[in-house]
Amino acid sequence: MSDTRYDIIGIGNAIVDIIGRCDDDFLAKHDAPKGHMRLVGAETIASLYADMGPAIEISGGSAANTLVGVSSFGGAGAFIGKVAGDEFGKIFAHDIRAAGVDFNSKAVNGKDPTSRSLILVTPDGERTMNTFLGISTDIDDGEVDPAAIKAAKIVYLEGYLFDRPDAKAAFRQAVDIAKSAGRKVALSLSDGFCVDRHRVEFVGLIRDGIDILFANEDEIKSLYETSEFEEAANRTLADTDLAALTRSAKGSIVISKGERIEIPVDPVDEVVDTTGAGDLYAAGFLFGLASGQDLGTAGRLGSIAAAEIISHMGARPEVNLGELARAKGILT
Amino acid sequence: MSDTRYDIIGIGNAIVDIIGRCDDDFLAKHDAPKGHMRLVGAETIASLYADMGPAIEISGGSAANTLVGVSSFGGAGAFIGKVAGDEFGKIFAHDIRAAGVDFNSKAVNGKDPTSRSLILVTPDGERTMNTFLGISTDIDDGEVDPAAIKAAKIVYLEGYLFDRPDAKAAFRQAVDIAKSAGRKVALSLSDGFCVDRHRVEFVGLIRDGIDILFANEDEIKSLYETSEFEEAANRTLADTDLAALTRSAKGSIVISKGERIEIPVDPVDEVVDTTGAGDLYAAGFLFGLASGQDLGTAGRLGSIAAAEIISHMGARPEVNLGELARAKGILT
Repeated sequence: MSDTRYDIIGIGNAIVDIIGRCDDDFLAKHDAPKGHMRLVGAETIASLYADMGPAIEISGGSAANTLVGVSSFGGAGAFIGKVAGDEFGKIFAHDIRAAGVDFNSKAVNGKDPTSRSLILVTPDGERTMNTFLGISTDIDDGEVDPAAIKAAKIVYLEGYLFDRPDAKAAFRQAVDIAKSAGRKVALSLSDGFCVDRHRVEFVGLIRDGIDILFANEDEIKSLYETSEFEEAANRTLADTDLAALTRSAKGSIVISKGERIEIPVDPVDEVVDTTGAGDLYAAGFLFGLASGQDLGTAGRLGSIAAAEIISHMGARPEVNLGELARAKGILT
Repeated sequence: MSDTRYDIIGIGNAIVDIIGRCDDDFLAKHDAPKGHMRLVGAETIASLYADMGPAIEISGGSAANTLVGVSSFGGAGAFIGKVAGDEFGKIFAHDIRAAGVDFNSKAVNGKDPTSRSLILVTPDGERTMNTFLGISTDIDDGEVDPAAIKAAKIVYLEGYLFDRPDAKAAFRQAVDIAKSAGRKVALSLSDGFCVDRHRVEFVGLIRDGIDILFANEDEIKSLYETSEFEEAANRTLADTDLAALTRSAKGSIVISKGERIEIPVDPVDEVVDTTGAGDLYAAGFLFGLASGQDLGTAGRLGSIAAAEIISHMGARPEVNLGELARAKGILT
């Protein structure tokens, strides 16, 4: 791993979250699938926004949240994603840079606006996302800087990128560059419905090109088309060298070379908003791997980062995660 | 109080807050006066934003926050303020309407952007505001709808409006309309430095046209140019029929017709962000008055609303304040 100035480089949709509270009836009224991400057009997002309660705006985006988490642990990270030159683009760029993540993508003017996701949080803390993809999928292969990819120990990709052809091309290019340079490639499956849309490609990619796989219970069951978590976990054992499967309150399982390690959750007083739980678990796990921790420690770093993020609104950490890990005795 | 469809109508700057954390050294480096609001130009706000940490965006504006609080208590409210047709203007308009406050001001395109305030919160929870006034001071007398003013039991004005001549003209017009219709007029002094800038006018206005005065300790001492709170309180007793003077952790004092009532604070576990403490105190107090509560109860409603707002980031309540007041036995 010589000449790596980054621990992790992420590629994903650059999104600003617009987060408000609602009840289950509101989700039903708007056909919003609870706990999932759905892609919506300009008209749907406008009518949903007009109908929803007061909101707050916080930078988001799955891989972007992960890179901010890596930086908060003390890791060196970079993010590749596309914003427009509008207010939301300025907010996204400011927040990720201010969090210590390298972000050099140029804003695109005069095309689509910066991507946004209306995130509805129900009283149980579950989040339901309605994402308008705007300019963020305009990442094409011109956007992927080979030097930056080669400079990272691990390239981290969000599955959501598969929802648009151009972004998928950038994704594949990044995998090729990383592989040629001997770097590791990590993938998050992002969402059960997203897996439904791209199952065959995801399975092929995982077998051929992915070194580290992140999935939650819903996603891994969708990938292997089973209703049994244990069956999905066993299938994963056969297909991957390293996977971290998260199961919400049941903790997570790290699978490596045919073995599995159970990781408990880090308890929280109240689940306020689950947005970013998987993203921040990935942050802790990837930071752990990149900094040479064993798999159990990496999983525990994932757990404490996930616990921090679900204890408040939004998917960006409110405390320094490195300090948190040291206070809990997981890092020294 | 016949024909009043509103309990309170507010006039103020329509602002979106950009809230981040910093330490005292950061404030010193940027000459930001701790605990105060300063007006800044486009260049200063750009350099401050570039230098500050990650932020979140939440609708704000002093009188706007108060009206959202009134609505959260169950009161009927309206707000007059100016936004541009940009993203921040859309955010402001959405959030205040979604909170149940009537907001009919038309967005202005092609001039200044929507106002924003960079709010820096230090570890002690104190907030320091750096406000770019943009379009919000474009309220002129054409903006003040006489029918709406007459339709409110109380007209509430923020002292910050005095910082621009056009807004001040709208302010004076609103006072005249309200007085002619036999309505009450309430004023918040907003900020000690703001009082410094407009002391003579404020004193004249309080003696002649203000029925209900809100000030914190810093503001009332500035108004009467004394370092002694008790002296300032005694001067207030002589000049006003009704005033509520807030003193942070020392609680508040309600002054009425030569008498004073002490109101304790509502305790909080942790002061996270003091932004909006005065605005929400005013919300509880004004809702109490408009709904026929006695002065002590109105003051307690102010205290619980202030306590709620300082326990989280941002100046918009996160819980229903009417339910909170009933849970605490202050309202039935």
